[in-house]
Amino acid sequence: MYLEHINEPKDVKKLNIDEMKILAKEIREAVITRGAKHGGHFGPNLAIVEATIALHYVFDSPKDKFVFDVSHQCYPHKMLTGRRLAFTDEKHYADVTGYSNQHESEHDHFILGHTSTSVSLACGLVKARDVKGEEGNVVVVIGDGSLGGGEALEGINFASELRSNMIIIVNDNGMSIAKNHGGLYKNLQLLRETEGKAECNLFKAMDLDYVFVKDGNDLEAMINALKDVKDVNHAVVVHIVTQKGKGFKPAELDRESWHYTGAFDINTLKPLGYDENEPLKENYTAITANYLLKKMKADKKVLIINSGTPAAIGFGAKQRKEAGTQFIDVGIAEETAVALASGMAAKGIKSVYGVISTFVQRTYDQLSQDLCINNNPATIIVYYSGMLGGGNDVTHLGWFDIPFMSNIPNLVYLAPTNKEEYLASLEWSIEQTEHPVAIRMPAGEVISSAEEYKKDFSKINKYELTQKGEALAVLGLGSFYKLGEEVVELYKEKTGKEATLINPFYISGVDEELMEELKKDHSLVITLEDGVLDGGFGEKITRYFGNSDMKVLNYGLKKEFADRYNIEDMLKKNRLKAELIVEDILKI
Amino acid sequence: MYLEHINEPKDVKKLNIDEMKILAKEIREAVITRGAKHGGHFGPNLAIVEATIALHYVFDSPKDKFVFDVSHQCYPHKMLTGRRLAFTDEKHYADVTGYSNQHESEHDHFILGHTSTSVSLACGLVKARDVKGEEGNVVVVIGDGSLGGGEALEGINFASELRSNMIIIVNDNGMSIAKNHGGLYKNLQLLRETEGKAECNLFKAMDLDYVFVKDGNDLEAMINALKDVKDVNHAVVVHIVTQKGKGFKPAELDRESWHYTGAFDINTLKPLGYDENEPLKENYTAITANYLLKKMKADKKVLIINSGTPAAIGFGAKQRKEAGTQFIDVGIAEETAVALASGMAAKGIKSVYGVISTFVQRTYDQLSQDLCINNNPATIIVYYSGMLGGGNDVTHLGWFDIPFMSNIPNLVYLAPTNKEEYLASLEWSIEQTEHPVAIRMPAGEVISSAEEYKKDFSKINKYELTQKGEALAVLGLGSFYKLGEEVVELYKEKTGKEATLINPFYISGVDEELMEELKKDHSLVITLEDGVLDGGFGEKITRYFGNSDMKVLNYGLKKEFADRYNIEDMLKKNRLKAELIVEDILKI
Repeated sequence: MYLEHINEPKDVKKLNIDEMKILAKEIREAVITRGAKHGGHFGPNLAIVEATIALHYVFDSPKDKFVFDVSHQCYPHKMLTGRRLAFTDEKHYADVTGYSNQHESEHDHFILGHTSTSVSLACGLVKARDVKGEEGNVVVVIGDGSLGGGEALEGINFASELRSNMIIIVNDNGMSIAKNHGGLYKNLQLLRETEGKAECNLFKAMDLDYVFVKDGNDLEAMINALKDVKDVNHAVVVHIVTQKGKGFKPAELDRESWHYTGAFDINTLKPLGYDENEPLKENYTAITANYLLKKMKADKKVLIINSGTPAAIGFGAKQRKEAGTQFIDVGIAEETAVALASGMAAKGIKSVYGVISTFVQRTYDQLSQDLCINNNPATIIVYYSGMLGGGNDVTHLGWFDIPFMSNIPNLVYLAPTNKEEYLASLEWSIEQTEHPVAIRMPAGEVISSAEEYKKDFSKINKYELTQKGEALAVLGLGSFYKLGEEVVELYKEKTGKEATLINPFYISGVDEELMEELKKDHSLVITLEDGVLDGGFGEKITRYFGNSDMKVLNYGLKKEFADRYNIEDMLKKNRLKAELIVEDILKI
Repeated sequence: MYLEHINEPKDVKKLNIDEMKILAKEIREAVITRGAKHGGHFGPNLAIVEATIALHYVFDSPKDKFVFDVSHQCYPHKMLTGRRLAFTDEKHYADVTGYSNQHESEHDHFILGHTSTSVSLACGLVKARDVKGEEGNVVVVIGDGSLGGGEALEGINFASELRSNMIIIVNDNGMSIAKNHGGLYKNLQLLRETEGKAECNLFKAMDLDYVFVKDGNDLEAMINALKDVKDVNHAVVVHIVTQKGKGFKPAELDRESWHYTGAFDINTLKPLGYDENEPLKENYTAITANYLLKKMKADKKVLIINSGTPAAIGFGAKQRKEAGTQFIDVGIAEETAVALASGMAAKGIKSVYGVISTFVQRTYDQLSQDLCINNNPATIIVYYSGMLGGGNDVTHLGWFDIPFMSNIPNLVYLAPTNKEEYLASLEWSIEQTEHPVAIRMPAGEVISSAEEYKKDFSKINKYELTQKGEALAVLGLGSFYKLGEEVVELYKEKTGKEATLINPFYISGVDEELMEELKKDHSLVITLEDGVLDGGFGEKITRYFGNSDMKVLNYGLKKEFADRYNIEDMLKKNRLKAELIVEDILKI
């Protein structure tokens, strides 16, 4: 066992090639074992083992600085930089985040979990080093899938301008999370086929020096290549070809499914906790895919766009095949996705862009300029939003879509509260031709009213009064409508009084007529939303009542970057529990 | 005079080559004359005259669809598509916007004024055409300067995936608004030098077909090249070399200054209304540049970053020379600019990113992920914000920075109200090491207190109580502080009572202690901000008081996309006048 003796990078340097090869095996086993027990990014970490050992063997971190794009391939690096216990000892699995993190180790320089940022961030390290007259190499590791993102291409274009040392390792395992999309992948293929010799070379066309390594899983080849580029005085791309999932057959064969994994049974490969006798639980992702597939079949003008995360929006290989050319994956290029949706919608196509809350923020300007100024009737489905639906890593929070989207003019942002409302809003949005519409997919367990939902959505900002009471009105937005029901119920239990319950549905505007009505026989309004309070829905309501005697309490999330939070703790901390809210109400 | 007979594109087709050459001359004269009298984009429109005539001669708009990137080169197109009067008749100059606009003409397909969006938008047109089984070419005209933006590179990478007709005219006049930055410009140069024959070709590396036209101002060459690519069944780049400012000597010689011009005297070239005996008025842009230049000289660790608009942030050729390598222009690549600023700040560099309000929204995700999650102490100066400072074209509004920036955790967003406050906040921000800080440059005429401003900015969210009164408190944010002063004064005049006046300074948070104080002897709070109300500063204040008896009125801008507005009208419409506000107050 060599890994247990690696406490810092310099311990790697003590090993000879054969020992390092055993170390590689140990690292791989740790990735697999931890993946099975704990889940995490899987295929990319298996691919990068030898390259990472070579990096630490050839370079001297932290004097030499490594930046791992999107962090999907940083586990071996973490193991070699004092964090091995978090990968070898089950008790310590949760000691580290799944991402690069400078607060964990001096060998990390950024918290990063969004794709395509590494080269541009590294340009900052290069410039800082040079201005301060320091030494050391700046090394980026970026996967081929991340290359197509706008920020990555901007960064690669800019890197040569620094006229200084920067080593960009393009880790080419032939795919993104899913299949790669974009013309540049043809060039990578050409370069692989010609062993880097083709004259037409994307990187050279961006004024970068270029080196090719045929087998990035060949430790000696990697060491030699890195030794060659160490201390170069300009920007160089080292294009290495690695095998995604290497060392774990199922992951080698089905590279998309094994990009990331939840905990699984190492023998059956089935997800832990999975009981095949249990019927599969319905979930909103599958509901969406099923609805869209049916819709596409019935109408050739319905086109679905996605940006590099097809399975996450319910379009695995099977669904993609079924959708055929009506499903478009633009690769990790959210900006192009929105522009494409807008361009198609401008000419009568019913375009639907499915995107995860934390990633839709990668295209704010296109939402505003390409889509909303043009007022084209595209539909955006925002997946995994809020605290209930979003990721709980600091880089993947789904809390911010309300502030950054609902304040863009022309955009109608909807928050259905259950399955039937959700499907009805999708249907309306896809068929209407007046507005760009975004729909916040409900989070958590599927709630079904089992009744067909009828609403004239075209009456923009017309909220739904579910229960008419007096004195107290509760506005429960989207996934927090259920909390609203609980509040109203508990309030009745405690006071015997019937409160008003409202399903606002429209995140992006205020139902002024209904709010005016409330003034007559209500004195307190409560808003509930699963997002940060600042710039959110509740504040619009509060502003509306600013000049009245109505008291308004806004419930939602504090503006902060929380990391790996526990939902229950967050709910309590933000007083998002029926008993806490009723306690507040009774105090007033 | 041929131009006066061109009422639609098909009229162009009636002309022979010699007649079209005369038409080119007429169009050029119209651009120059209108530019002198009215101002507008200048150099790019002079460069594209022949290409545009060729486009309309060879293709059939609107069946064939043209998309002009950023619209900086759309005037000749407008002249040939029924809008010539707006260029030849002074009375009609204001009939058209300066940008592409589908509401003006069926020959335009999008409102667009932000760079690098054209290819991705055009992908939507291509797909819509194909799904509907329609005919026609989709043609993009994109300047070389726009190529470096993330969305453009994403789009160029994606275009070949459509496997369908798309013609991308890369209009290479050898510069962006200012000098081009990025490695790809080396490749354009190589292609120019080899007349398109170099094997290493950025566009081919993106799987695009490629054609080179040596002289894009040669009408016949352009016609021949376009005839050759018409109706191709795949995506092709037509790389044309044109001369920026062609036909107007000063613009040919100083291409940066003449990219855009205000109205000028055609003989002296001096700006209209300019009186050389009048001392130059101080403005915040020059104040900023002067301060930064001095700061850079004193401290080699101060670095200024800009993204393709150096002159607009006060760094013309002279200032850039003075700043030397401490001034970095990344080209039109806002995402890289923020990442670079963050990366440098992470390692102790005092990085300052100067950016225009309407463009900083092109990098929301990087503000959130690359900068604020990492909490690196970079400074962002937001130029030309608000209604008072921003552009008044719908694509260039400066009203949205407060909602999309101030609700990002960790970012401290400051709104100084005068010159001394501004300089003090810059100084603090650059020297502090705790927070990412954005500073909203004050808008409009420079206001000076003529006193050194001292404030402990590190007490985050500590507002400034300027005048203590009772009953009424006015919070005048940034450029609207002055309006706050007027309100308080007029209120006193009308009622004899002294109101409280507050300079909040911190856009991104609430001074809870001070607000708590107000509860004691105030019953009404007024907030004033130069930005949309939705998601803005005022709503945070209102939320704070939601559960109290305090009444709060928020003044700011209605959420809308206004186009070419008149400031005075907008102020009135939004009741942003002291007399209207006091009228409202007295009603309560």
